[in-house]
Amino acid sequence: MEVPRDASGSLDQLAQVDAALTIICNPNAPTCDFLPVESLEQLARGLSGVLLIDEAYVDFSPDNAIRLTRQFDNVIVLRSMSKGYSLAGLRFGFGIASPVLIEGLMKVRDSYPVDAVAIAAATAAISDQAHFKSNVDSIKAERTRLTAALRVLGFQAPYSQTNFILAQHPAAQSVYHELIKMNIYVRYFRLPGLEDKLRITVGTATQNDKLLAAVEKILKNR
Amino acid sequence: MEVPRDASGSLDQLAQVDAALTIICNPNAPTCDFLPVESLEQLARGLSGVLLIDEAYVDFSPDNAIRLTRQFDNVIVLRSMSKGYSLAGLRFGFGIASPVLIEGLMKVRDSYPVDAVAIAAATAAISDQAHFKSNVDSIKAERTRLTAALRVLGFQAPYSQTNFILAQHPAAQSVYHELIKMNIYVRYFRLPGLEDKLRITVGTATQNDKLLAAVEKILKNR
Repeated sequence: MEVPRDASGSLDQLAQVDAALTIICNPNAPTCDFLPVESLEQLARGLSGVLLIDEAYVDFSPDNAIRLTRQFDNVIVLRSMSKGYSLAGLRFGFGIASPVLIEGLMKVRDSYPVDAVAIAAATAAISDQAHFKSNVDSIKAERTRLTAALRVLGFQAPYSQTNFILAQHPAAQSVYHELIKMNIYVRYFRLPGLEDKLRITVGTATQNDKLLAAVEKILKNR
Repeated sequence: MEVPRDASGSLDQLAQVDAALTIICNPNAPTCDFLPVESLEQLARGLSGVLLIDEAYVDFSPDNAIRLTRQFDNVIVLRSMSKGYSLAGLRFGFGIASPVLIEGLMKVRDSYPVDAVAIAAATAAISDQAHFKSNVDSIKAERTRLTAALRVLGFQAPYSQTNFILAQHPAAQSVYHELIKMNIYVRYFRLPGLEDKLRITVGTATQNDKLLAAVEKILKNR
């Protein structure tokens, strides 16, 4: 079952359901906000089932939940190499959990689930934390600049804890369609609460400049 | 449902079931024999559902069923880079089918199912057919030599159409356990009809020599 998002950030309803497996994406997509790890800690304590925390975007966040995997046997944290390591083409992810939880997963996993070349590349990337940090810092700096520039263009954009920005504008949908004509692709979701928002991934400085110039032009010509 | 293997090689029972999806491994594992493509053609014609032919081991066989994918919309052939291309570490496979069948699969497939590095490596490997053929030829030559040597040691070993040999011997199970102690790993299945057989993958000449020497020693010391 799906538990609707509580605007206050409360996880009480999830705790009440107490599913065999509770999945939370933190930071969340596409809202780009970050739940305090303390809230997740409280949830983990209240659940009898497994709490899976998808931290695909956590490289751009102020904190992470790895410490909970040492504290609780029922917590598993998922990570991706696609965002902070910029290795989306590698299709490489991994999970972090207590030995007892991993042991259970080992029993049901496929024999050879991961490409040996991808393991070597991912290991090399993780070993180079200096490069990783500089990559994440560049994206964060561009995030700050892009957020400010979108606000100047009339968007409401809360400060993001991910590598994308959820930017609100009454003309969001038409901006989305005009951008496609200019070969610029952002995400638009025709879903309740998202009809007036664009999910814009933070690109390189050049890409962001191109996007900003395009959006400015679109809004001027309306 | 599972349809038991017909010793005569007839596929009539599979045709009678007429499942939504019929799966056949050809050449078959672990029996290492090859069904004539004509039998598969007849089966494809008789089925209203999809016929999936797993050709993981076909690089070592006298024929293959790709032509059926041009003849029938309901046939899909699966291939692996793990055997004839010796790229098991890449975890790369692919399917060949009519445009209409592929179109249906495209609708339900995941967004980015394959690692970009693996695609590049697999493409390069497939492009080098001379290397591929020489690799397959070496394995086939070793297969002939290993089969003959196992027969000399008292095994019954039908001629294989794959890169492994299903070798029968009354002492199969104890040979298997003794080989493990010597750090040599073959497959043993405690299943009806397989209790007296070992599935031995054809290795390099050095590996095969090591295996043959070990098996000879084990059988002598019984």
